[in-house]
Amino acid sequence: VSGAARFAAVDWGTTRMRVWLIDVAGEALAERRSDEGLLSAREGNRFGAILEAHLAAMGAPAGLPVFSCGMVGARQGWVEAPYVAAPAALDAVLSQAVPVPNHPARPVRIVPGIAQREGGAPDVMRGEETQLAGLRAMLGGDSHLVCMPGTHSKWVSVRDGRVERFATYLTGELFSLLSRQSILAHSLGDAPPDADGGSPSFRDAVRQAGAADWAGLLFSIRAGGLLDGASPADAASRLSGLLIGGEIAAAARRFGGDGVLLVASGAMADLYAAALEAAGLGVRLADADEAVRTGLIETARLNLDAETEPGP
Amino acid sequence: VSGAARFAAVDWGTTRMRVWLIDVAGEALAERRSDEGLLSAREGNRFGAILEAHLAAMGAPAGLPVFSCGMVGARQGWVEAPYVAAPAALDAVLSQAVPVPNHPARPVRIVPGIAQREGGAPDVMRGEETQLAGLRAMLGGDSHLVCMPGTHSKWVSVRDGRVERFATYLTGELFSLLSRQSILAHSLGDAPPDADGGSPSFRDAVRQAGAADWAGLLFSIRAGGLLDGASPADAASRLSGLLIGGEIAAAARRFGGDGVLLVASGAMADLYAAALEAAGLGVRLADADEAVRTGLIETARLNLDAETEPGP
Repeated sequence: VSGAARFAAVDWGTTRMRVWLIDVAGEALAERRSDEGLLSAREGNRFGAILEAHLAAMGAPAGLPVFSCGMVGARQGWVEAPYVAAPAALDAVLSQAVPVPNHPARPVRIVPGIAQREGGAPDVMRGEETQLAGLRAMLGGDSHLVCMPGTHSKWVSVRDGRVERFATYLTGELFSLLSRQSILAHSLGDAPPDADGGSPSFRDAVRQAGAADWAGLLFSIRAGGLLDGASPADAASRLSGLLIGGEIAAAARRFGGDGVLLVASGAMADLYAAALEAAGLGVRLADADEAVRTGLIETARLNLDAETEPGP
Repeated sequence: VSGAARFAAVDWGTTRMRVWLIDVAGEALAERRSDEGLLSAREGNRFGAILEAHLAAMGAPAGLPVFSCGMVGARQGWVEAPYVAAPAALDAVLSQAVPVPNHPARPVRIVPGIAQREGGAPDVMRGEETQLAGLRAMLGGDSHLVCMPGTHSKWVSVRDGRVERFATYLTGELFSLLSRQSILAHSLGDAPPDADGGSPSFRDAVRQAGAADWAGLLFSIRAGGLLDGASPADAASRLSGLLIGGEIAAAARRFGGDGVLLVASGAMADLYAAALEAAGLGVRLADADEAVRTGLIETARLNLDAETEPGP
């Protein structure tokens, strides 16, 4: 019956969660967002209670299956969904969603993350694997260099539907620490950085970081203020541009490729699109929120089909 | 008369100051150290009073000239000693030491810093120019690639007694922020980093940072803890090695040269010497404390000689 929920999809991260009711056609019937992320939910192990409260508020029927991804599957989460080793086929990762035991209200499965152990650069992802699977359903095409910006940006090389290798850059965290607490804080004051990458200061800094070592240019923000009286807004845009430009240049060298699939939403999408263009890379944009929801729908499809497959 | 002070030398930085009485042969007769750096002394503009208190305690005679360097000459210091533009001959910089007006107790001169305005990478130094001048007197030789590690490391290309160009790396500050406040803090705990660069973790990280983008390896510290149970001490040494190795690799690319003159003291000297060796660079070590004192003696020589030069 159209309009009836077939399952619930839950993107459950460190600080936030989102819940959707999805019908048989893969359309979202309802959505709820909250701040009850891992950090909040693990206090008193309230994962099950939080989930049920949201589902009840959305009128989800008893026994409706749930598919979830993100930090909810970490060791300190609800149930640990052990990492699958890269290189990893995305279909296989989604099919290994781990059932939550001792939750009588309904079946709940959590998508595992992916771990990279080879190559001297151990790395992990949780949640991004589901977005990557969603991209396949949204865009078609199985091979991309994917940029997923944020507090901890991920760059992922996907080939033929497999996560080959990836790297994490602490770009957002570095911006936050350097802008507020380093010697550069004097130069930035309370000025917000260029939000959408439209300023020349931002774009120049992106290009500079691509041509030289960005870390050796950070102090130029301070010196520029002392010598040329550069404004706080310029300083903030330069810091943002150097960090994002440094991330892009390093990732482009590491992974090759002149085209990038940018998976982001809102202002972050504008900022990184401007930076990728300033760096001379081709950009295709996919919405990050849509990607995770679509990935969870793929998870449901793979796991529900397996469960209801007719016998021979 | 041997044993009589000819002048006083003062290294006056952001958080610390040191005073020496120097005799006619350039030997230090007495030394005092204190925490009355710029940040403390500028409260109520106590520079003159602090200096006189130390000189009185050391028994300095009335009218003894003083030569000083460091942040005491910054805009927010005692008297601004405006930057000399790079490329800058070190002798000329020292000769331009600025007299402090309105200090009747004795003549005081402050060595100016050096500013780099060209090349799209504005940068400044204050205090390092005096150390660089000291190196010439200590070592002979007028051309070096100099590494001066610290909270804000400086790399300086000196040719024929001139500061050609230089760069500042926020390595020490990045270590402090990332080790205590980033997601990596979970992996480091309270473990101190390798103090002298003797551990394999530190040296491996230095070499890794030379071969790849170090910023893309920071998260491997976290992932290494999750996947392999790497110890907090290993994590701290890896963070230190990645940051110092990244600084060395970037500076070596920027300035060229396979030999580095390392100007440092104590544990910092051991740590950077180990890192430079792990990175495959030849290292010659000069003591940083001796360099600044010797540079101030050079300053006195150049300025006192000029004042007492006989007429034609």
